[in-house]
Amino acid sequence: MVKLKIGKLVVIGVGLIGGSFALALKRARAVSHVTGIGRTRRNLAAALKLKAIDEIANDAAGAVRDADLVMLATPVGQMPAIMSAIAAHLPAHAVITDGGSTKRDVIACARRFLGGHFPRFVPGHPVAGTEKSGATAAFPELFRDRNVILTPQPETAASATRLVRRAWEACGARVVRLDAEAHDTILAAVSHLPHVVAYALVNLLARRSNAAQLFGLSAGGLRDTVRIAGSSPEMWADICVANRDALLAVLEDYENELEQMRAAIDSADAAELRRMFAQARRAREKWLVRQRP
Amino acid sequence: MVKLKIGKLVVIGVGLIGGSFALALKRARAVSHVTGIGRTRRNLAAALKLKAIDEIANDAAGAVRDADLVMLATPVGQMPAIMSAIAAHLPAHAVITDGGSTKRDVIACARRFLGGHFPRFVPGHPVAGTEKSGATAAFPELFRDRNVILTPQPETAASATRLVRRAWEACGARVVRLDAEAHDTILAAVSHLPHVVAYALVNLLARRSNAAQLFGLSAGGLRDTVRIAGSSPEMWADICVANRDALLAVLEDYENELEQMRAAIDSADAAELRRMFAQARRAREKWLVRQRP
Repeated sequence: MVKLKIGKLVVIGVGLIGGSFALALKRARAVSHVTGIGRTRRNLAAALKLKAIDEIANDAAGAVRDADLVMLATPVGQMPAIMSAIAAHLPAHAVITDGGSTKRDVIACARRFLGGHFPRFVPGHPVAGTEKSGATAAFPELFRDRNVILTPQPETAASATRLVRRAWEACGARVVRLDAEAHDTILAAVSHLPHVVAYALVNLLARRSNAAQLFGLSAGGLRDTVRIAGSSPEMWADICVANRDALLAVLEDYENELEQMRAAIDSADAAELRRMFAQARRAREKWLVRQRP
Repeated sequence: MVKLKIGKLVVIGVGLIGGSFALALKRARAVSHVTGIGRTRRNLAAALKLKAIDEIANDAAGAVRDADLVMLATPVGQMPAIMSAIAAHLPAHAVITDGGSTKRDVIACARRFLGGHFPRFVPGHPVAGTEKSGATAAFPELFRDRNVILTPQPETAASATRLVRRAWEACGARVVRLDAEAHDTILAAVSHLPHVVAYALVNLLARRSNAAQLFGLSAGGLRDTVRIAGSSPEMWADICVANRDALLAVLEDYENELEQMRAAIDSADAAELRRMFAQARRAREKWLVRQRP
């Protein structure tokens, strides 16, 4: 296989995902030049200092003019404005991809705003992250052995998908192809719902007059359960809105699960609680404990 | 201060808590001899091999006859049977304590079954643990810098409370005194509810026909959020039943929190979601991130 070499990469939104993508490609020597675009000068300056990017650009339209690959790594709510700003300025060969946590809305947006360039847009989602955000949170190993889901459309050029797949593989990721609707339904369950669950749990405690005492007497169980409540509010609000239907459906299922547990607690049915808890423990052992290195 | 020296410690239930208590006291050279009692020979043999205990006893009544301190570290559902079995055999000076995660029910049980020995019972709860259980999960540093809550009653002898406090301090713990009802209400919110939330989340996913795919595409967020769903089903079923009223009250509050988020998602109110998520992130940063070493 010929070694991947991307000439100019433009990263729009140089945060945890965009910054780590650039750092990983640089470490793999798979990119020659990285231009960063973002909303705050301070974050871009940090990205430059960390060598995630080689150059700061102020104007997305100008920056993409000679791009080979454009990575959109902003919160999904910003994609329409960005896509409409760059569409007319993309060179014909340039491939566009994104790192958004929802795919149907991003695809609809690209279909609408990228126009004739849509076949060179490869929708993607690296299923990796931490609760931290911003360029200073980026690190090149973020995607190692993690899944990256690509959801190419019927119009998507095979050559574009291949480039994006190879770029992610150069970052150490496993690339999985999925239907966009399947992606959104699955991620609603395994990622978006857990975030809502964690945010709600923290707010319940934070709202109480004895919040300091409550958190002071908590232990590692609470701390881990709500780690992801440290995630970017802006990014997660956008995700919840973008994937609203799938999220509402799984949230209803979750409320039913809670209701079953509530009923067993209410009737002091220890045997039923043991059965439900044991089922959860077995599933966690089977699928989550062995999964990780 | 005179160095603490316990002659004979009897640990009933040599699991994560009981085993770690014995190991920590031994490391601090605060105990001369530890006798272990439990339901399964295999676990006791492991505890003996790990030197958490020096001796296995088959009969609780016989073992406590010359005990100085008795630690009850079984699931709370077993306490009535154990207390009634040992009550008549305790020497007058022996101090009894427990590691149960609920306090009102254990106190009521002790009041009923320990009879004249009740003033030497010091209800306690080390707020520490991992999702693992059994003697092999025990380690002497488990309680270091963790809170141990004692909830002595009006009848409790000051000398008994002092001994138990010093034992926990020898394990490296911070000892906090609380009213038993306050303890149960606080722990329902910061510990018991998070366990129910995590167990329910795993079961929701495990129940689906594509469970393997769901877990396979999950990332660190889910893994941390449900770590405590690996906890002992028996222990947690007992806790949920024992602390039923406080847990049901806080579960209702939690369902209200979820409902507020559901409503904001349903109306695609990104601004309100951002506000709620930002509140959670601030609270986590204020109280949970800085708390830990």
